[in-house]
Parts: sequence; C-alpha cells; structure tokens
Amino acid sequence: MEGMVVCSANYVPLTPISFLERAAFVYGQRVSMVFGDTRYLWKETHERCIRLASALSQLGITRGDIVAAVAPNIPELYELQFGVPMTGAVLCALNPKLNATTLAVKLQQLEAKAIFVDYEFTKVVLEALGSLSQTKNNSPVLILIQENHTNAFSAIPINFRLDYHALLATGKLDFDISYPKSECDPISICYTSGSTGKPKGVIYSHRAAYLNSLGEIFRIGMRQKPVFLWTVDMFRCNGWCFPWTMAALGGTNICLRDVTGTAILNSIFLHDVTLFCGPPILLSKIAETLAVDPQPLPQKVDVIVAGAGALPEPQIQTKLSELGFNITCAYGMTEALGPVTSRTIRRSCHDETSQLDHEDARTRIREGTHSLIIEGADVKHPTTMESVPADGKTVGQIMFRSNTLMSGYLKNAQATEEAFQGGWYRTKDLGVKHPDGYIQMKDRAIDVINCGGEIVSSLEIEDVIIRHPMVSEVAVVGRPDELLGETPCAFVKLKDGCCIVEEEIMDICASHLPEHMRPKSVFFGELPGNSTGKVQKFVLRDRLIKGDGKSL
Amino acid sequence: MEGMVVCSANYVPLTPISFLERAAFVYGQRVSMVFGDTRYLWKETHERCIRLASALSQLGITRGDIVAAVAPNIPELYELQFGVPMTGAVLCALNPKLNATTLAVKLQQLEAKAIFVDYEFTKVVLEALGSLSQTKNNSPVLILIQENHTNAFSAIPINFRLDYHALLATGKLDFDISYPKSECDPISICYTSGSTGKPKGVIYSHRAAYLNSLGEIFRIGMRQKPVFLWTVDMFRCNGWCFPWTMAALGGTNICLRDVTGTAILNSIFLHDVTLFCGPPILLSKIAETLAVDPQPLPQKVDVIVAGAGALPEPQIQTKLSELGFNITCAYGMTEALGPVTSRTIRRSCHDETSQLDHEDARTRIREGTHSLIIEGADVKHPTTMESVPADGKTVGQIMFRSNTLMSGYLKNAQATEEAFQGGWYRTKDLGVKHPDGYIQMKDRAIDVINCGGEIVSSLEIEDVIIRHPMVSEVAVVGRPDELLGETPCAFVKLKDGCCIVEEEIMDICASHLPEHMRPKSVFFGELPGNSTGKVQKFVLRDRLIKGDGKSL
Repeated sequence: MEGMVVCSANYVPLTPISFLERAAFVYGQRVSMVFGDTRYLWKETHERCIRLASALSQLGITRGDIVAAVAPNIPELYELQFGVPMTGAVLCALNPKLNATTLAVKLQQLEAKAIFVDYEFTKVVLEALGSLSQTKNNSPVLILIQENHTNAFSAIPINFRLDYHALLATGKLDFDISYPKSECDPISICYTSGSTGKPKGVIYSHRAAYLNSLGEIFRIGMRQKPVFLWTVDMFRCNGWCFPWTMAALGGTNICLRDVTGTAILNSIFLHDVTLFCGPPILLSKIAETLAVDPQPLPQKVDVIVAGAGALPEPQIQTKLSELGFNITCAYGMTEALGPVTSRTIRRSCHDETSQLDHEDARTRIREGTHSLIIEGADVKHPTTMESVPADGKTVGQIMFRSNTLMSGYLKNAQATEEAFQGGWYRTKDLGVKHPDGYIQMKDRAIDVINCGGEIVSSLEIEDVIIRHPMVSEVAVVGRPDELLGETPCAFVKLKDGCCIVEEEIMDICASHLPEHMRPKSVFFGELPGNSTGKVQKFVLRDRLIKGDGKSL
Repeated sequence: MEGMVVCSANYVPLTPISFLERAAFVYGQRVSMVFGDTRYLWKETHERCIRLASALSQLGITRGDIVAAVAPNIPELYELQFGVPMTGAVLCALNPKLNATTLAVKLQQLEAKAIFVDYEFTKVVLEALGSLSQTKNNSPVLILIQENHTNAFSAIPINFRLDYHALLATGKLDFDISYPKSECDPISICYTSGSTGKPKGVIYSHRAAYLNSLGEIFRIGMRQKPVFLWTVDMFRCNGWCFPWTMAALGGTNICLRDVTGTAILNSIFLHDVTLFCGPPILLSKIAETLAVDPQPLPQKVDVIVAGAGALPEPQIQTKLSELGFNITCAYGMTEALGPVTSRTIRRSCHDETSQLDHEDARTRIREGTHSLIIEGADVKHPTTMESVPADGKTVGQIMFRSNTLMSGYLKNAQATEEAFQGGWYRTKDLGVKHPDGYIQMKDRAIDVINCGGEIVSSLEIEDVIIRHPMVSEVAVVGRPDELLGETPCAFVKLKDGCCIVEEEIMDICASHLPEHMRPKSVFFGELPGNSTGKVQKFVLRDRLIKGDGKSL
C-alpha cells in the first residue's frame, strides 16, 4: 500500500532486553531483587547487566556464542538472563543437580565459550569437563559465582579464570548492547527435563521469549509491580520466562537458594510475596509446614503449578485457598517455554471473586484453555491432523501452534522436524476435547499402557490411588506381560509413618476402576524423581524389565 | 544455530484476528456486545464477523482493497473491525460528523471498493460521492446500516446495493479467513483529527494493531472480562484498538449511539461498566450530570482520557474519584494508534491502593511514562537527535520508537519520511524530560507562540486561565502583530450563566504569568471543536488573520 514503510522507528525486533531498558527508565528506584541481605533497584540491575554484557564481550563472547551456567536461583543467574543476550550470545542454564556424566553430555553438545558455576557446584562441573578434555580443544572460560558474604573460597580455584564480581568490575556502562538482528535469533537454550530419558536442548528465540513473557502476565491478570518468589527453577524454561516478565512489570524478585516449605512461608510474610510457581509438590511442601502452624496469609498469593506430579487432595487445596492461596493449574512443556493452557482451580479468600465458576468446580483434571498469546491449542488425529470431536471422549494428540514455541532442538534437525510435522507442535500427550473447548490430558503418549489391546491411561489409575488417605505419591507404568503385552503396575510412596498392604490399594481400585484398568501389582517405596518433582517413569519401567521392581 | 526452523507451527503473523478466534473458543458463551435490546455472545460475534467477511468476499472485496465506513459506535462498526481484515482488506472508519466537502477529499484519496453507511448519514455520503462522480469511474458498493428496530427506511434508498443484515445473510460460516501474509500488512486506515487542518490517512499494520491491543491491557492492568463502554469514537485510532483488546480479554462491549453524561452514568449502573475512554471533556459531561444528583458508583470505573482539551478543575477530579472513578491521563496521537504515555492521576475510592504516589500528586501536567509495548519515548533535539538533559527545563521535541507506530501516511511518502526522519517518530510536540524520566508536553510545535523572539507556550497560559472559576474552556493562539510577530490571544468559553469581562482574565494572568506571556486580547464565545472535543486552533488563527476575532 502506497505510503507504507518499515524502518527503525516503527519496527524494532521483539526482545525481552527491551523490558529491562524500560524498567530502568520507569521503575528505576524500585527494588528489583532481594536475596538475603542483598538488595538491588531496577536502575542497579540494569547497570549490572550492562556491565556483565560488556565484560563478557571483552572476554570474546559474541553473537551466536553459547554461555552456560550451573547455579541455583540466585541473583547472578537472574542477571545472566539479560547480560548474556545483551552480547548477542545464547544462555543455557543447566540443572545444578545433574551428575557429572549427564552434565558432560550436555556440555559436549553445547560447546559453550564460557561457563558460570556457583561455588556449590564447582566439583561436578570440573569432573564433567574433565571427562570431555580428551576430545575437545577449545576449553571454555570458567567463571566462579561466590555469594557476597559466604566467602566459600579464599582463592579462586584452579581452572577458573575469575569470579563473577571481579568480572562485573571489568564491565563498562557505555557498552553498546547487541540487540538481535532478527527477532527470530536465539536467546537461550533449555534442556527438556528428561521424563523420556533422552534430554534435548530446546532453542528459544527473542520473539518467543518476548511474547511468552507477556503471556505470563495475562494468565492470571497480573498488575504492575508484583513480588515474585523464585520457587520455579530458573534453568527450567528460563524460569517460565519470569525473569523477563518481572522486568516488564517492574516487579520485585525474591531469590531463594533452597526452596523449602518454611522458606516459602517466611518469604511470603517477610516480603509481601504476591506470586510463585513451580511443580505441584510445592503445594504439598507448604501444606506440610502449615499443618504444624496454620496461619492465614497477609495478602492473596497467586500460585501457578505445572509439571507432572499429582495435586494434593481436594481437602488440602481447599485449606490452602482458605488461608489465601489462589491456585492456578497449568499444562505445558519445555518446548512451549512453559505453561500453555491453564485454569484457576481454587480462589483464595482474598480474591475479588471468591466464587468458583461452575465450570471450574465441575472437575479437577482439566488442563483448561490456552492463554492469550497462544494461536491454537487442539486435539488432533496424529496422522490425518483432523481435530477430534469436542465430545470429551475421542482421544487424540494434544497439539499447539504459537509464536511462543521453540525454534527447534539444538543440533537435532530430525527431532525438530518430527515435532513440527503437519504445521503444529506435537506434544506427544494424549487428550480429549470437551464440548466447551477445554482440553483434558489423558496421558503422556509414552505413559499409556497397552493392556491386551485396551489403551489404559496411567493418569486415571493414579488419580484413584492418590485418593487413599495414606498415599503420598503414586506412579503407574506398564509391566511387560507375556499374555497381554502390558499390565498396569503401581509404585506407591506412603505418607510418613503410614503402613498399608497391597490389598488396600487393590480395593480402592476395584471400587473405582473397570477390571482391565486395575493394577496387577503394587510396589511400595520412594519414587525416582527429577529436580522438578516429576517422577521418572522410564526408571520404573527399566526396573520392571530388569525384574527388580521389589527392590525399588 | 543448527536445529532452528521458522515454520507455521512456531511463527504465526501477529494479527488481532487471532483474538476473535480465541474469544469464540474460550469465551464463547460470554456476552460480547450490548446495544439497546441487542445482545450477542462471543460465539455469535465471531460467526457474524465470519459471515461478514464471506459476504464481502463474494462482493469481490479482496486482499489490499479499502473498505470505508461512516457510522457512530454501533455493533456493525465493531464487527467491521474484524470482518474487513478477515478478507485481507483494509478498514477505514470515517468520522460521521464530517461535512460533505471534507468527506469527499478523504473518499477520493481512499478509492474504497465498498462503503458502509449508517442510516443517519446517507445524505452526507451521497452528497460527497456526488461531488466525486465526475472524476471517478469505479463507484464503490454502498451498504446501508439500519438498526434492527428503528426501520429508518421502508426500502433501501437508491444507490445502495443492500443493507448490512441482508449482506450478512449471504455470508457463509465455512469461509476461509485471509490471514495477513506478513504481519506488516495493512489492517486499517485512520485519519488524523485535523488539528493542523491537513488531515492525513494513517496506515496501521496487523503487527502494530496486535501489539497495541495488548499494550492497552497493561496500561491500567486490566483483568479478564472487562465491561467496556464505547465513549471513544471507533473511527478514532480504531477506537484506540479497544475493539481488538476486548476480544483478547473476552470483555463485554456496551455500544452507545449518543454519548451524553446521562447515557454514560446510566450504562455504568445498568451494565456494571468497568472502563471507558475518550477526550477529557467526558469528565466534564459526567461532572455536570452528577452535579444534579451525586451518587457513588457501584464499582470502581477506570477512565482513560487523552486528546487535547483541559482536564476539569482538581476539585472536580477529586469529587469524581471519591465517587469511584479511577482517572488515568494519557498522551498520544493517531500515528501511534492512540495513547503512548500515561499516568494515573486520581484513584477511585474503590481502588486497592487508594493513596496517590507522591510523584503523581506533585504536578498535574505530566504526560507520565511510556507503556510496556513502547520501545522508546524521549525528548530530543530535532536536528542533532540528541536527548535533552533530564532537567525538567530544556525543551526538545517528543519522539517515539515503537512497534505500535503507523506504517506511514496513505499516498504521502514525503510526509511519512519526514515523520520518521532520524529513526524516531517525531510528534512535533515540544516537551521536557524530568529527572525521574517523566516526559512533560510543553506545547504542540504548531501551537507555540513566537512573541518578539520569545517562545511562549500556549498551554501554560491556558492552564492559568482555566483556573478562573467561571471559565469552562480556553484556547490561546498567536495573533499576528506587526511589531512582535505574534502576541498571545485568548479565546474563552464561560460556564452557563456566567458573565465576566476581559479585565478579569487579564488579572488572573497578571498574577501568575510574566509580562510577555500575558494575552494581549481576549474573546468570549463558543470554541470551534472537532468531534473529540479538541479545539481547532487553526480555525481561531484563521479568524484572527481575517480580523474577525470578535465575531467568534
């Protein structure tokens, strides 16, 4: 159309770096970060990130390089979420609880130019790098993160070039930020949590990160200046993009090195926390702490839970909401930068609208609807790509289309192609669509049990067993069976001090499930979980194949 | 980076059409529209827009065509905001209060393929088209909009092909939406309000419209499902993008054919309105109505005011906020799709945080800070493009960078180039930057008075005169002067039943303004305003040049 132009005034590549720039301008004097005695304003966080970018630049880090970090939820890891992209490089925050072998696999794939390592995790990183040294020439620059006051090392350990604070001191404030040339340029890499045992490096673009950060605001209608407690891991989907969301809203970040029920509750009272997120197990942790000393919250606190793991029983949910927690349940994955669909299941006593929608109250196992920035969420036949009827019964694969999806898997074009086959992202989760458009997950495709040709949902069995008052956690997987192919097998963790026998589990299943869905065997013990509380079913399956279920 | 792809799963051109698609899915059973006895659900609005697009398509409307509309804030104009872009065409809603001559100029430039005309405005449109017929061959398809129950015409008048409802009946629900090929494709054209007397057609892109619709949500931290009263003209910046914002949030639109103080208040009580917007004169209208029967609102009501025209006196603002209005003052322009910077000046008694920030209370003439989606707002020297110091004193030109700026002026490449010269959008407004980053407008560049070499701000003089308790409106312009070039001249409208003489205005100026800023002449009478209440200063200047100021 005559008269139209695209120029630097009206087209600026979308990037969350903009949020920090604006935060320094609009919220400069507000507190951005609290961690123990450490406290920064947005003006300071902005300056620290610029210095960090400048210092990394001087170390030779440049556009397209990968910078890794192994650290818990501390301010330095928060600053890296901005400082690394400001150089044009790509941040990969890694789970600090990985063992050296697993870490080595990822580090080999990443070929990071620099690695930031928290003082607690130097040993495992050095061990991982040691196992790589024979095959790699370009060793990365290692930067140590020490807490201001802990003084964990009197001298920088060997192999480390310098520490974070010394690095920052070399940075300059007049650094020229390397904005992305295209908004589709990569900003970060996050590894999938590995419930399938084959972790992949998921690449995020600036555009996806920007739009998903905004999407998080809409999910629960966040207002300006929230106080966010860091209970979700920053290495997990870049902390569900909340580092960037907080800059967008001029919020305050409360960092925690260790996430316990007591630490969460103390922070809520001390810092007027308004929001935190993470796996459902967070709710159980809080409920346990509150069981000792139940006290109403000083203000409404929004909680978004997502990831595998059962929600606590309805009675506990009700109790938490009566104390002031506003619980939203979400469904998503690393490939989607975090939650995609969600619904608020329990409104707190402080909420403006304390009554539950009829819809919400109707059932407790619905993934809800897709949030504002998502272009499409549907349940489709994986071959024909046709939508299943919205009858609440026909099972298909849950699929998404969105500007907030990954750009692909690092160095794995084949997996990328498979994931996006048909023009939609294939979650591999099975689900149904209800007449009101709500999507309900029936099972992860990998967790479906094929029992003599009958497709059995492990989730539905788990949902029955968890109702037993003495059961704390449960996971159901398929056990190889000569006759039927597979039969359901339940692994149960009991609450502290509780003791029941297999028959009690069988009984509760018998009264709620059809014959073919009832577990044929039950094992008791701890469940193998990853750092987000997600049960690693592949480990359980392995054990069953090796026949050592009893020694779980 | 190896493994990255851009495909239809992870890259969908940004367009507000998506908001309507999602609204039908997520908010399908919620009320989208109320207009008298007419009431639609989001599912119905979605279907009506699809039928509209299908019907337009069958009329031959296709990608890149322009469709014009001349109508007040009625549901049909709302549906056109989606239905026209769904065909790939570009909507231009025109001010229905234009006279035939002014309308003809715009219609000639637009070369619209179809024009929708509200029954009240058929005469002026036909007159305008009549004046064009000698020069144009392709006459547009004319579609009449009649209200369901008014039955204004027993038969469709000559020249009109059919009426809106008959058109809709021809549309099909299985229509294949023409999504934009690029998100930079045009979605609409809005004419500038013409305070300079030279209206321009401002082109908006799908990307800008999408992002600005989100920006409106952040400005006041809107939650889901607001109830929006249509007091801002839909032809003005596409109603500040609120048609799209309401679809994004599943809100309810309350349409009004005539915007009066009584109509606004009745709607607030009847429909639980949570938000409305428009020029500052809205507040005066409400204050006048409430003066007769002051009653507290049943809920907090957000009001965003922007555009020229003075705010009511502080006492009236306080009274309105005590009754429940939460007033936000914004600054923007057609080229920026509506408001860019804003600040909340008065919080309602219902607001969670009823205390004003110190900052906010400090002064009442600050434009505040730029909203979340804006990339940059600055005050710069127009030649060197350097930022002025943030000292609250140094005057420069206010400039913006944003993905929410226009694509350019229709068929006016030169004006587009001038507006974006230097990589920023030049507002032509003069302003200063305060130490806290707040921007304050000093004057529209065009409204500055050059008085013997002294640059005098007409706004500052107006701000003094409006304080006189009997003054209702005031506009100050430069009057040609042989000796000084220009001298300030005040045009004053008094409140009903009030009577004062020139000396009283001179006195209040003498006690608050330096000698050279005091008006040398004062005229009393009605002020020429456009439909948004913006005083047309160019009309006043014309009159002064022609020497007929007295006959104002």
